[in-house]
Amino acid sequence: MKEKVLPKTLPGFMELLPNEQILFNEMKEKIQKSYERFGFLPLDTPIIESSDVLLAKAGGETEKQIYRFNKGESDLSLRFDLTVPLAKYVAEYYSNLTFPFRRYQIGKVYRGEKAQRGRYREFYQCDIDIIGEDELSLINDAEMPSIIYNTFRELGFDDFTISINNRKILNGLFAALGLNDKSVDILRIIDKIDKIGKENVVKEIKDLGVEQNKVDTIMNFISITGNVEETINSLRNLNIDNELFNLGINELETVASNIKLFGVPTENYKIDLTIARGLDYYTGTVYETFLNQYRQLGSVCSGGRYDNLSSYYTDKKMPGVGVSIGLTRLFFQLTDNKIIEAGNRSISKVMIVSMVDDFNKSIEVATKLRENGINTQIFTDKAKIKKQFNYANKLGIPYVIVIGEDEINNNVVSLKNMIDGEQKTVTLEDAIKIIKA
Amino acid sequence: MKEKVLPKTLPGFMELLPNEQILFNEMKEKIQKSYERFGFLPLDTPIIESSDVLLAKAGGETEKQIYRFNKGESDLSLRFDLTVPLAKYVAEYYSNLTFPFRRYQIGKVYRGEKAQRGRYREFYQCDIDIIGEDELSLINDAEMPSIIYNTFRELGFDDFTISINNRKILNGLFAALGLNDKSVDILRIIDKIDKIGKENVVKEIKDLGVEQNKVDTIMNFISITGNVEETINSLRNLNIDNELFNLGINELETVASNIKLFGVPTENYKIDLTIARGLDYYTGTVYETFLNQYRQLGSVCSGGRYDNLSSYYTDKKMPGVGVSIGLTRLFFQLTDNKIIEAGNRSISKVMIVSMVDDFNKSIEVATKLRENGINTQIFTDKAKIKKQFNYANKLGIPYVIVIGEDEINNNVVSLKNMIDGEQKTVTLEDAIKIIKA
Repeated sequence: MKEKVLPKTLPGFMELLPNEQILFNEMKEKIQKSYERFGFLPLDTPIIESSDVLLAKAGGETEKQIYRFNKGESDLSLRFDLTVPLAKYVAEYYSNLTFPFRRYQIGKVYRGEKAQRGRYREFYQCDIDIIGEDELSLINDAEMPSIIYNTFRELGFDDFTISINNRKILNGLFAALGLNDKSVDILRIIDKIDKIGKENVVKEIKDLGVEQNKVDTIMNFISITGNVEETINSLRNLNIDNELFNLGINELETVASNIKLFGVPTENYKIDLTIARGLDYYTGTVYETFLNQYRQLGSVCSGGRYDNLSSYYTDKKMPGVGVSIGLTRLFFQLTDNKIIEAGNRSISKVMIVSMVDDFNKSIEVATKLRENGINTQIFTDKAKIKKQFNYANKLGIPYVIVIGEDEINNNVVSLKNMIDGEQKTVTLEDAIKIIKA
Repeated sequence: MKEKVLPKTLPGFMELLPNEQILFNEMKEKIQKSYERFGFLPLDTPIIESSDVLLAKAGGETEKQIYRFNKGESDLSLRFDLTVPLAKYVAEYYSNLTFPFRRYQIGKVYRGEKAQRGRYREFYQCDIDIIGEDELSLINDAEMPSIIYNTFRELGFDDFTISINNRKILNGLFAALGLNDKSVDILRIIDKIDKIGKENVVKEIKDLGVEQNKVDTIMNFISITGNVEETINSLRNLNIDNELFNLGINELETVASNIKLFGVPTENYKIDLTIARGLDYYTGTVYETFLNQYRQLGSVCSGGRYDNLSSYYTDKKMPGVGVSIGLTRLFFQLTDNKIIEAGNRSISKVMIVSMVDDFNKSIEVATKLRENGINTQIFTDKAKIKKQFNYANKLGIPYVIVIGEDEINNNVVSLKNMIDGEQKTVTLEDAIKIIKA
């Protein structure tokens, strides 16, 4: 006899119990349905790609995290996001696609991050992107918050804020201040403002060798608050003479004024001039989303506008805008903080218990229930009735139908509601009505 | 400027165009809903496992196909089926699970097979299994064909046959003939009968050194036909004095007689004594499923009963029964043979065309449609109306709503049915009714 192998799931890989998995799948399906509501087409690209394709752009920190290996003579990598596969896909199937191309993809990606609680090496991303050919209207930028809004409403949230900004404003500001060469570092510092506070932001920017008056301008800039109109006015009143800066203000104004038309209540979005979303990818509108009561979770849905999706694969200019939900991490955070709970979710609505040896009637009843669209299972093992009810309870199955001699002879069923404990003898047709109600 | 990288998907990895992906997802969802109808719980185990866990059992041909690699100090492998991860899962979470444990998993698995048309290195398996503790009633074996039946009906098929057999009958027969040592080889030959024909089966069995009278018995055995009752009688009339053989007949009789109760029409299942399903894994009932008009596709859903799922990980005895659909290969075969076609499937039901520069009304209408559960997209680019209609046509969107000055002033919309070309001016409420109908 061979030694037993310890059955152990790798650290950093989420594996759920069935009731948790049901909840996870419910969330995944709600996100999918919401994305489809906005006319996004599904994609399902491979998890493995050729390394030269997948890493065309990567480098540095990202490359170190890649799962990369050889199989035969092929140098392969597991995808680390869904954006690079999209860039490849759009370039590869360009002539078969219709632009603007609206696609969603919900799938697992892989990053060999340091293992730590709440960090995953395999995790779901739920992405939407709209890709234009040569150009793409700003209406699409305004639509994104409405998709985020609808999706999080579907997920059961009310109290969240979608923060928007425009990278052109930030870049234009730095150009006007002659800080182009330091903009990457300054943006990185501003991005941390929630974590390190205003004072430390000032300190860190000064440490870069930025003069006091410029630091003041930056801090004035990121301190601008108010509603959309007030914020836009305050930005204009800074009187910064830079084309990019002013183009950014116009874009932000167009986007922000259209968001309301898309049905997003004013309390669910705002301009936040401190968000920058990474360093070189985004070129226009950027988004972050916060659950107001759980702001410490960080942004739960982020993204932005980019000028050129597939520049590593094609000369065609394809601007786009998109957002992504990191579902695995979000699920961990929500359940870990007991914001949502799996409880005793079940797939089966009914379990059949047979009091007689012969399963004929039980099978007949189960088949009828299933034909009526009711998820049903039969308890088939020999076990005491108490154990059978226990089984239904553990699985959270809300109804049990008991079939005994009397029920068979009278052509009825005993229907027990497992939540309130009520049991009644009814015809199968009535049982179906009750269960479906 | 960096050289462009050729955007190329790896051979053996299915990547679909959006309309094909919609069809694929429809099939996947139908399978999922069908599995849930029978009360199976969802699982989603990692694609990467520790090699010592995943390869506890593997060896030979399977091991060569594994995607196996090191990341840091870890020896990792990609799952090559969903059964080994299930065995691990059940052993690992044993104390958290309720048995019989009914689970489905639909996910990608990886095998580095020789690249050839219709063979995939990444493919979806759609598995269901029922795992018992110590024992599991044969009612579960009888339920499997009804799940297969319902699933393929949902997928749109009528004319298919679920073949069932019992490995105990085959193994008992070989024991009775003193051919235990050759049973693996003989089963492998019998398994090929559809491909190589009866005569070659006789020849190949003889080549193994089996005496003529024993070859005759084997051939008599596998030639038994008729309905369930006739087949069982013919088997009994062979008068083979072997306990396993006769136990197998009893099991097969129990299973076959219960299948009908589960609502499977007699024309959709039969006993086929030639099917064996692999060589050492299954120990009782085995299943294969054939589309009768496309028998050359091979079995489209297979599985069987096994004595002990997790013996490599635990001493607990866990018998089970399950079946699997290889969806990626099935999808390829069905589309390649034009048995199903993606056509112009769309996600959006409506596209909005704005004849005015201002998108306010378009956005308002789109938001209203979405609130009514209608998948909707807005055409946001500046383009001639003809190009916009063309876009809707290419994406197979069935309705276009046109919004111009007149529509805005009269608070109506122009609704065009893209299939019959009919266009009418109606209120938005009426448009919603028409689209939903």
